[in-house]
Amino acid sequence: MRVTIAVDAMGGDHGLSVTVPAVLSFLAAVPEAQVVMVGLAGPLEAALASEDKALRARIKVRTASEVVEMHEPPADALRRKKDSSMRVAIDLIKSGEAQACVSAGNTGALMAIGKFVLKTLPGIDRPAIATQLPNTHGVSTVLDLGANVNCSSEQLLQFAIMGSALTTAIEGRENPTVGLLNVGEEETKGNEVVREAAELLKCSGLNFYGNIEGDDIYKGTTDVVVCDGFVGNVALKTSEGLVQMLYQFLKDEYSRNWRTKLAALLSYRVLKSFKSRLDPRRFNGATLIGLRGVVVKSHGSADELAFEYALRKAYQEVAHGMLDRIAQRIEAVSAKLPVVKSLDVDQASA
Amino acid sequence: MRVTIAVDAMGGDHGLSVTVPAVLSFLAAVPEAQVVMVGLAGPLEAALASEDKALRARIKVRTASEVVEMHEPPADALRRKKDSSMRVAIDLIKSGEAQACVSAGNTGALMAIGKFVLKTLPGIDRPAIATQLPNTHGVSTVLDLGANVNCSSEQLLQFAIMGSALTTAIEGRENPTVGLLNVGEEETKGNEVVREAAELLKCSGLNFYGNIEGDDIYKGTTDVVVCDGFVGNVALKTSEGLVQMLYQFLKDEYSRNWRTKLAALLSYRVLKSFKSRLDPRRFNGATLIGLRGVVVKSHGSADELAFEYALRKAYQEVAHGMLDRIAQRIEAVSAKLPVVKSLDVDQASA
Repeated sequence: MRVTIAVDAMGGDHGLSVTVPAVLSFLAAVPEAQVVMVGLAGPLEAALASEDKALRARIKVRTASEVVEMHEPPADALRRKKDSSMRVAIDLIKSGEAQACVSAGNTGALMAIGKFVLKTLPGIDRPAIATQLPNTHGVSTVLDLGANVNCSSEQLLQFAIMGSALTTAIEGRENPTVGLLNVGEEETKGNEVVREAAELLKCSGLNFYGNIEGDDIYKGTTDVVVCDGFVGNVALKTSEGLVQMLYQFLKDEYSRNWRTKLAALLSYRVLKSFKSRLDPRRFNGATLIGLRGVVVKSHGSADELAFEYALRKAYQEVAHGMLDRIAQRIEAVSAKLPVVKSLDVDQASA
Repeated sequence: MRVTIAVDAMGGDHGLSVTVPAVLSFLAAVPEAQVVMVGLAGPLEAALASEDKALRARIKVRTASEVVEMHEPPADALRRKKDSSMRVAIDLIKSGEAQACVSAGNTGALMAIGKFVLKTLPGIDRPAIATQLPNTHGVSTVLDLGANVNCSSEQLLQFAIMGSALTTAIEGRENPTVGLLNVGEEETKGNEVVREAAELLKCSGLNFYGNIEGDDIYKGTTDVVVCDGFVGNVALKTSEGLVQMLYQFLKDEYSRNWRTKLAALLSYRVLKSFKSRLDPRRFNGATLIGLRGVVVKSHGSADELAFEYALRKAYQEVAHGMLDRIAQRIEAVSAKLPVVKSLDVDQASA
């Protein structure tokens, strides 16, 4: 399927030095894809000048006159930078010139611009941030990771619908299982919002497994893990911190003396494959899900390989009709559930 | 300092076969300690019969006629089993015969009985569950880990006070730093409760660092990490699941073929010290903090070593005056902060 992805060529810590080579590798690997790179005219043209003709022919260039800074307040980026590379890239979805947008820029700004330009999908109160995390036998899709720090039970239901559609699009699983992150498996556990969400999920027609606990994320008990953005963000960051600490401990132990250093040398390949199973680059790309368009946020510090993974994720979501799947599942769920007035209780975005 | 600890000898998955040897090792290591073991008369006397006379002399026996089951509803354990080993052990604190109680039994029941018999400390709305987790350079004290799934900002402040006192008692750090777990460092981040809690903490006179994120737990950015019980429970369980997955991955990689198996053999000591740095037994013992007495919950599956760590933790908390320290810090904080009506919004216990 022919897919055009708009790339914010200037976003992230490394800008063009990462986005250009990543786009080239991506195009070489995915013949059905085309890219519109959006950036400052001079630097972007220069970065693309010497590239392979055949690949270059599948890249369009759109210029933008400014760049959203990594720590710029989202509201400023939205109001004052109407010709930023991020904004122009999102506008390309709106105008139909692209079906997806990938940016390694400021998350808050990308979400604010996405919401303003594209709006949310019918039936969705607010977009969420979703990503895949490794588990013992594959990956789990987890959402929300920080866009909504206060959620109603209806929003958690919407996250479940979106996570389910995303998992089908990315993983090809037709009827993925959905778990509700809680402090225990029993139905009496948790707060009121989570208990209500469980009731809604039971009647939703989704493949609802029930309550799960934090360890189930990595056990892979369910394909989709639903939680509010506060809890999801803490779970994700806690995991990042723990992995860093474990690497540090492993390094400490292997560098104690000549014997342990020798053991490290002999374990080089083992440790390399071990690390590659957890390589955050392979899981790069968080989907801003719930917008009327596919928007994928790459980590700001992404390197070429990581950014390419984010591009592939956006491609998959378009090629496997994620947006249509969300719409269909919302239809199906509304048919089963009494219409509930959605409460928009979110007070802040992360 | 002479300290008497009441031990629920029947609690946990292994009961007497773990509690008796753990108590003996503990007494051998801590000459100032005495223990009252509470359990079913016959089995307890039999388990203690052949033990070393000198150590045995420091163990009193109190009989109880029943045992709280691991999955018994806490309310039932509280109302119907007034002569359970857990209840009698807690009663010993109330009567002044012991200064602390350690149990590997049902957490909910221990909390319910603790609250009913001992009551909460003045200035504390509800007790929390606190434990120590390893970080890159020591340990972090984290609370609440699941007793309170909905917290007010005042409760988060109380957790900070209690966590600070606990850290001083256990770690000997006089003025420990306190971090508030949030989805970002900026003051605008998070939900209303967390933002209000930050305001209270700023004026509290505690050594408040500010907002921290999930990865700061393992970086050890602050000595104390404060969060509500839902978030804390998810962070803890997520960590447990992640560590299990990493061990599995490491094992997979080391068992691929004869070369990797050889590497594993040569790395045996390194991997052993690596695992021991994370050994959950070394961190066993969650303090039910905020009660008028020291109550430590051991993991249900604790072995002898793990249970001994829980006993040592209880000993430290008594020997270093944790309860008095909490009272003093509550005094000091109330002097600085305008009296705020404490809202008890907790709806469920984990």
